[in-house]
Amino acid sequence: MKKGKLIAFNGSGLPLEIQEHQLSALGEGEILVKNRYTTLCGSDIHTYCGVRQEACPTVLGHEIVGEIVEINAAHPGVDDNGQQLKTGDIITWSIFSSNPQSVFSQEGIPQKGDDLFKYGHAKITNGDAFHGGLAEYCVLRRNTGILKIPALMPLPIAATLNCAIATVAASLRMAGDLTGKNVLIFGMGLLGVACIAMCREAGAAWVGAADVSDERLRHAKRFGADHVADSSTSSEMLKKQFIKKGVDVVFDMSGSPVAMELGMDVLAIGGIAVWVGAVFKNRKIAIDAEKVIRNLHTIKGIHNYNFDDFKYALDFLEKNWQKYPFDTVVEREFDLKDAEQAFEYAVSQKPLRVGIRI
Amino acid sequence: MKKGKLIAFNGSGLPLEIQEHQLSALGEGEILVKNRYTTLCGSDIHTYCGVRQEACPTVLGHEIVGEIVEINAAHPGVDDNGQQLKTGDIITWSIFSSNPQSVFSQEGIPQKGDDLFKYGHAKITNGDAFHGGLAEYCVLRRNTGILKIPALMPLPIAATLNCAIATVAASLRMAGDLTGKNVLIFGMGLLGVACIAMCREAGAAWVGAADVSDERLRHAKRFGADHVADSSTSSEMLKKQFIKKGVDVVFDMSGSPVAMELGMDVLAIGGIAVWVGAVFKNRKIAIDAEKVIRNLHTIKGIHNYNFDDFKYALDFLEKNWQKYPFDTVVEREFDLKDAEQAFEYAVSQKPLRVGIRI
Repeated sequence: MKKGKLIAFNGSGLPLEIQEHQLSALGEGEILVKNRYTTLCGSDIHTYCGVRQEACPTVLGHEIVGEIVEINAAHPGVDDNGQQLKTGDIITWSIFSSNPQSVFSQEGIPQKGDDLFKYGHAKITNGDAFHGGLAEYCVLRRNTGILKIPALMPLPIAATLNCAIATVAASLRMAGDLTGKNVLIFGMGLLGVACIAMCREAGAAWVGAADVSDERLRHAKRFGADHVADSSTSSEMLKKQFIKKGVDVVFDMSGSPVAMELGMDVLAIGGIAVWVGAVFKNRKIAIDAEKVIRNLHTIKGIHNYNFDDFKYALDFLEKNWQKYPFDTVVEREFDLKDAEQAFEYAVSQKPLRVGIRI
Repeated sequence: MKKGKLIAFNGSGLPLEIQEHQLSALGEGEILVKNRYTTLCGSDIHTYCGVRQEACPTVLGHEIVGEIVEINAAHPGVDDNGQQLKTGDIITWSIFSSNPQSVFSQEGIPQKGDDLFKYGHAKITNGDAFHGGLAEYCVLRRNTGILKIPALMPLPIAATLNCAIATVAASLRMAGDLTGKNVLIFGMGLLGVACIAMCREAGAAWVGAADVSDERLRHAKRFGADHVADSSTSSEMLKKQFIKKGVDVVFDMSGSPVAMELGMDVLAIGGIAVWVGAVFKNRKIAIDAEKVIRNLHTIKGIHNYNFDDFKYALDFLEKNWQKYPFDTVVEREFDLKDAEQAFEYAVSQKPLRVGIRI
């Protein structure tokens, strides 16, 4: 029986713990992966800091790439693009598995389907410990989306695909056709800067970016923003520059109520606001219903993504990882055993991502 | 030169005034209509009461049917369904005309297009007085949607088509396919009860209705609601009944912030809230962004309608005006000269509609 190491998270404020667990035999349709690289997502940091709660002990990390070690015979043996899978292949996988026959799956919302399981969010139990990115292995359950990573794509870039990039892909789907549109994005973390690049590639005419941090606005420029704005300045000033522009689509990756409200203020008639970032408790957003009605505004919330978005994300990255500075997203790397340092660095320095070599 | 009478509205609190004005010669592509019947819409009542402001003096009334008196030679001579138009035809027309080449028109939002003109909302000027329903005539401008009224449809029913029924048609378009969906509608004025019938015909599995008035909930039952609820009762109680139901689509025809907030509370995952009623100043709506995101909710505002909705409304009414009690919508009729009594009756008795015979 094989054994593997993992980093157990026991709750915010408690030290991370290196544990060794046995690997159980694969269940029907499962795949065993040796994790190769994990990036720490904003929600990992939130959990680490106690802003989000998970059932503990757990294995954090869900932005993962790994190498196939074993494929159970009941697995169809192909990835979501129909490509043959074999041991040694470098793959990434959807952050969830869910029953494809459930109502939500059939309606294109598998991330809310029955029997939902989320990698990097589950409790460690006896015989079921390898389901997160901060571990040597991960067992992929049935009904997990799988994508082979193109040979030349660096692991630190590929690791961000199954959460950040796929979520942005879902956000773009919510916004509809962006051809010729003016787009404004709040929050220049990885989702925000990736959104700039993805909107550009989707044909947006103009892409503006807003954040409270100058450092992050510099990232925004590097990722192709036409205009960057410090969203900590007076909202009246911001409104003036953006209303003149006539913003067709606003993406909120920041989760800031002020940003979401400002976003509604600058939307043109028929405009769409896509809310993505606010996945934590905060004050309510004050919406002027008369304005929403008279201007035919739409607000759409999106959480995670579906399998089409997942494939769109790979397609985008494959074509564009060299065109935009995705190689600068991971600002510092750590070994798995130094995961705690990695979190501390992420909390204090707020890089777009830190990477964990496994 | 022909002359005609109209009822001038000089501002809230001032008496309505019967005036006689000359009819100018028709401009290029215009049609002269002799108004036959007008119903007073909620927004007419709001203007009469001073809740809304219009440039005065004006001719109120925009839910109108009339008889064609003259068609300028430059008019294409067909209605929006391609039917030949001739003098004597009974027609209704879109509440607005707008430039079909403008960006918004091309994007399916002609109600926000360039050169927008709205019947029943314009100032009386010299030589341009006949543009509302409380008048003997109406001059239809170029780029006005026109529909012939089927021979058997009573005028009081046909009059509601171009505002109430068409706006509900637009609301249904916002909601997407309703087949098998659970729908909850707030506000049982004419839009609300028409929405019940239209959702039923569009294949909804279950239609609930909420209002603060028992009288209006009785209307809702007559129009086919599966369940009616007094929305003045505790919102916790209402939530319990509706959350269990799993509401896929909420329509707000009430304009009440409490109703809109309750609507968001009871939406199922992937649910859509369509906001229609709140076309007046009110407090802001408090929205839980995290819930919108995690539940993949959508909020859509709709104001007025486009020409497809207008045709959908006629098609619906033609097929269903006898199946649902649309003949009870006009609860009392008045002659044009008694328009003031009609308004006073509408304000005090809150019928679904009062009708004005012309």
